[in-house]
Amino acid sequence: MSSTIKKIGVLTSGGDSPGMNAAIRAVVRTCAFHNVECVGIYRGYQGMIEGDFKEMGPRSVNNIVNKGGTILKSARSKEFMTADGRKQAYQHLIDAGINALVVIGGDGSFTGAEVFNKEFNFPVMGIPGTIDNDIYGTSHTLGFDTALNTVVEAIDKIRDTASSHNRLFFVEVMGRDAGHIALNSGIGAGAEEILIPEEDLGLDRLVESLKRSKLSGKSSSIVVVAEGDKIGKNVFELKDYVEENMPEYDVRVSVLGHMQRGGSPSCFDRVLASRLGVKAVESLLEGKTNFMVGLLNDKVALTPLTQAIKGNTEVDRELLRVSDIMTT
Amino acid sequence: MSSTIKKIGVLTSGGDSPGMNAAIRAVVRTCAFHNVECVGIYRGYQGMIEGDFKEMGPRSVNNIVNKGGTILKSARSKEFMTADGRKQAYQHLIDAGINALVVIGGDGSFTGAEVFNKEFNFPVMGIPGTIDNDIYGTSHTLGFDTALNTVVEAIDKIRDTASSHNRLFFVEVMGRDAGHIALNSGIGAGAEEILIPEEDLGLDRLVESLKRSKLSGKSSSIVVVAEGDKIGKNVFELKDYVEENMPEYDVRVSVLGHMQRGGSPSCFDRVLASRLGVKAVESLLEGKTNFMVGLLNDKVALTPLTQAIKGNTEVDRELLRVSDIMTT
Amino acid sequence: MSSTIKKIGVLTSGGDSPGMNAAIRAVVRTCAFHNVECVGIYRGYQGMIEGDFKEMGPRSVNNIVNKGGTILKSARSKEFMTADGRKQAYQHLIDAGINALVVIGGDGSFTGAEVFNKEFNFPVMGIPGTIDNDIYGTSHTLGFDTALNTVVEAIDKIRDTASSHNRLFFVEVMGRDAGHIALNSGIGAGAEEILIPEEDLGLDRLVESLKRSKLSGKSSSIVVVAEGDKIGKNVFELKDYVEENMPEYDVRVSVLGHMQRGGSPSCFDRVLASRLGVKAVESLLEGKTNFMVGLLNDKVALTPLTQAIKGNTEVDRELLRVSDIMTT
Amino acid sequence: MSSTIKKIGVLTSGGDSPGMNAAIRAVVRTCAFHNVECVGIYRGYQGMIEGDFKEMGPRSVNNIVNKGGTILKSARSKEFMTADGRKQAYQHLIDAGINALVVIGGDGSFTGAEVFNKEFNFPVMGIPGTIDNDIYGTSHTLGFDTALNTVVEAIDKIRDTASSHNRLFFVEVMGRDAGHIALNSGIGAGAEEILIPEEDLGLDRLVESLKRSKLSGKSSSIVVVAEGDKIGKNVFELKDYVEENMPEYDVRVSVLGHMQRGGSPSCFDRVLASRLGVKAVESLLEGKTNFMVGLLNDKVALTPLTQAIKGNTEVDRELLRVSDIMTT
Repeated sequence: MSSTIKKIGVLTSGGDSPGMNAAIRAVVRTCAFHNVECVGIYRGYQGMIEGDFKEMGPRSVNNIVNKGGTILKSARSKEFMTADGRKQAYQHLIDAGINALVVIGGDGSFTGAEVFNKEFNFPVMGIPGTIDNDIYGTSHTLGFDTALNTVVEAIDKIRDTASSHNRLFFVEVMGRDAGHIALNSGIGAGAEEILIPEEDLGLDRLVESLKRSKLSGKSSSIVVVAEGDKIGKNVFELKDYVEENMPEYDVRVSVLGHMQRGGSPSCFDRVLASRLGVKAVESLLEGKTNFMVGLLNDKVALTPLTQAIKGNTEVDRELLRVSDIMTT
Repeated sequence: MSSTIKKIGVLTSGGDSPGMNAAIRAVVRTCAFHNVECVGIYRGYQGMIEGDFKEMGPRSVNNIVNKGGTILKSARSKEFMTADGRKQAYQHLIDAGINALVVIGGDGSFTGAEVFNKEFNFPVMGIPGTIDNDIYGTSHTLGFDTALNTVVEAIDKIRDTASSHNRLFFVEVMGRDAGHIALNSGIGAGAEEILIPEEDLGLDRLVESLKRSKLSGKSSSIVVVAEGDKIGKNVFELKDYVEENMPEYDVRVSVLGHMQRGGSPSCFDRVLASRLGVKAVESLLEGKTNFMVGLLNDKVALTPLTQAIKGNTEVDRELLRVSDIMTT
Repeated sequence: MSSTIKKIGVLTSGGDSPGMNAAIRAVVRTCAFHNVECVGIYRGYQGMIEGDFKEMGPRSVNNIVNKGGTILKSARSKEFMTADGRKQAYQHLIDAGINALVVIGGDGSFTGAEVFNKEFNFPVMGIPGTIDNDIYGTSHTLGFDTALNTVVEAIDKIRDTASSHNRLFFVEVMGRDAGHIALNSGIGAGAEEILIPEEDLGLDRLVESLKRSKLSGKSSSIVVVAEGDKIGKNVFELKDYVEENMPEYDVRVSVLGHMQRGGSPSCFDRVLASRLGVKAVESLLEGKTNFMVGLLNDKVALTPLTQAIKGNTEVDRELLRVSDIMTT
Repeated sequence: MSSTIKKIGVLTSGGDSPGMNAAIRAVVRTCAFHNVECVGIYRGYQGMIEGDFKEMGPRSVNNIVNKGGTILKSARSKEFMTADGRKQAYQHLIDAGINALVVIGGDGSFTGAEVFNKEFNFPVMGIPGTIDNDIYGTSHTLGFDTALNTVVEAIDKIRDTASSHNRLFFVEVMGRDAGHIALNSGIGAGAEEILIPEEDLGLDRLVESLKRSKLSGKSSSIVVVAEGDKIGKNVFELKDYVEENMPEYDVRVSVLGHMQRGGSPSCFDRVLASRLGVKAVESLLEGKTNFMVGLLNDKVALTPLTQAIKGNTEVDRELLRVSDIMTT
């Protein structure tokens, strides 16, 4: 591949997710494969502003394909939201001879990339890295599959103790704006109810549903709740409400928290990261810019960054239906 | 849904795979949801011949969504290959009032279902359950995703000891006719080479590639080999050949074996099983027959059983390329 | 073994813990081995009061050695604290022909067993089942080892995200009265500080220690906090205090919660459960009563129930020292 | 602590085992705690001969407590068996200012340490690192506990498929000279038979026992076989023999292999490694030499290297009995 691009920078930005390291590795090795230099930029846009760079060759990324987190670290940068900050960042890139950028992160990171591109006409390519799966233009974001496995394994453990004691558990999972984690892990873990930001079940219907479940012979129950569930009560308030209305139930709460972001990536996320990393670099070398690489219909595909940022990812109505039927 | 179908039988057949239990659960609960009776048939077609049946209600399948194996057990049945055997099986179904069948298994099981349908005009629906992912009409078979995670976790462990000792490991994974497991797990585990039935790398190029990898600074290597790899040598012969030609390497072999078939299913496989189970039952209730339910472009879709059986599933050339680039 | 004991009852009581099922299995099979009948009592003492019994043979406990929770379920019983309740329970045992009891649980359960023995001269034997490891007379309670693995695996995941973002995490683990889980998992997970009920580090020294750790070059930190830590602040108050005094740190909290009680038991817990189950039954058959079977100096040994209940289990000062040195 | 020892070398030797990294970390940090320098020696004795050293401070061992393998790598060294080799090694130590040595490994490694000590009066301290648990003077070697968990998790998976198909599996686990892994994992995994080097069950009794197990209602069976089992047949020959004598059984073989050596260490192994590392360094600083630090009766204790090397570790007869009873 002949290209005017001779050196590519790669960074991770926003919340970290499993598979980011595998994506960094893929970017670095694809650069090496095409005889293009590669530079790791530490701590996202903040490191770009500070010139916190490191040359990376194929051996720099040995033994990271299976590691959680990001070896390049991540950070949120307020400075990058200012024109001055971006100017400094640009100058550092130029000084280092970097002439294209791969940004691994979520929609906030992509917005930064787009603004940066517009101001300096600098080639950028996005890779969706977030456990929330809330990016338009890809069926799966990096880390989503791993997070689902982490969640169902945790709920499997909670179910052991729930069913030993005939208890009801509210389990809060990540997802402030999107119910993808809750919906999929809820089905996977056999939850009796799933509360997500996209749907308002209503407190009364929740209690009704739990009573029906109890009547049907279930002695214990798991309710999976997304952080941003529509009912608008936090998981401890839900517990109080249900205990008041179902005194026969011993209710407990578990907030799974940040462990959902970590851990060794699943095979799916490792393979996805490898595919997206290859495509991101090769797309830049082909002269493309301002796209996100994603997975659509099982194929790697490009989506304009603008769409990736603005597009909605709705939860699949089919999954909502499957969830209903499974709680028969 | 109104339908002439009042009682559905469900069986698992052929090699077991993680997610089969979740699929059984989905079939049983979808029947209950639609007020249709459901009967579990033990040990596949053999149990059908012997009338080894059990009524199943929604509570019969509590706490199995996360269990490996199949509570209905599986078996291969020679008797079912005879007209007499199938006649007995048919009589048992009729006697039990069963008027449709969900078959969870691989292409051998689907062939049985198709023959049975033709002979007795008996409604059948297939769900692809095999770790090999070698069924046409679905991007993922039940158990494939779980098996990949099992394999990469095992290879991650092997890599610990490989890199501590600067060793080369040949790791044999399942896949007599198809390289899907080898190719995906090889990329996921960061293998230096991947040998699959679909491609003949050749022994000389294998050794060359390993030498290049060593020269590039890698001190240890993993080669993932599908059971049915094209080179046609088993994994122990490969070891001997490489040791002869690369005396500098300490070579070891690991055959992962049957643990690949077991284990608690991944969230992906549990959700897939739930979706396919719902679709299988509802398709029967809609009067459809002789289809396999599968996942195509992330949507649940039907494929005629004949196609599912005869169609080829080729390995994705893109993945072969990604694999090559990753070993830079 | 000849004995006047012909039928043994087994129950689980109090909080469930991984390994309880393996212990039930061991009790049931040891009974069968000695041609003694065995009866499972559901829901602890409450089920004893209600006569909720089930005959158990060696095949009743197939495939449970690796399952978390307890197939006999557990419950706390207020009724058993009354003389009337215990009298009913006794009558049910007599009616069922049960003439000895194995109680798997913690010190509350043992207190119940002792009172019951005194009132009715009924042979009882205790097996320590609790994740907290706070029972005198055994180096390990059933479930402690498994819970430690669950905790370190969760913290390993949290560390991925902590070190990607240079964050400080307070991780709350179980242990209202005892710091065994916190101390061991803290060392195992490489925590920078460990706060336990047995020691008052003091808020000032905590902050000092974290500052020292930061100065030494650590960019992220994990502090493991037992529920009942001596500082007397809950984990969210700790976060607030540290954020106020170390504004340079981005602090997060994770409460691991009930998942610590569940999960497939570790090999250690399965073997321990098997050994204790054998010893409990054989001790009863030898005419012993009012003991707890435990592990002392790697050997199975008996401790009088009274001592097991009253004795203190102190945290090992050596471990505190090791923890200090490891945070150098 | 005042001591003539100012710089301590640490190496790993022989087969690697999970927990070696945690032990290296503990040695390095204990040195730092006592203001003693620490040097990592790569590739065991071979690296000592070649002067392959690296200064290590407390931050050199960040984030390795949970990693399998050994960052110092391991190797077997023929050269170290010669007086010349050892002389070179000694010279390198002297040149580097190293005046004491911590050797993490098995009995072969300890023999090397002892010879080296005798020739040069050089202070040495051993830490038992091997998954086989065949070292006298410690109840647990580093990695044994982790390997047991790896094995039972693998067998749990195999059991899923075994019980789905009513099959008999021979599972070979590590242990050429010692049956500790086989015996403990066999009990933990609920194996029907366990074949170990220390006991000759005999082929006839094996078949008898399997027949009895089948008659008792078990439909599938797992036999755990140590590599060096006394019957003297390898696991494939066992399969053939049993198939000939029990044609009703479908027999399969699984050789778990090198994955048993890898993986993230269990909490137990991480804590043990930390305790042993502290004790090893502090014992050297107290002027002690030629000991192995181990765990005896749950306390860290010293055993003369000579005894550690020569002493026998017998399998616990109690465990053999427990195993028998569990297969009732």
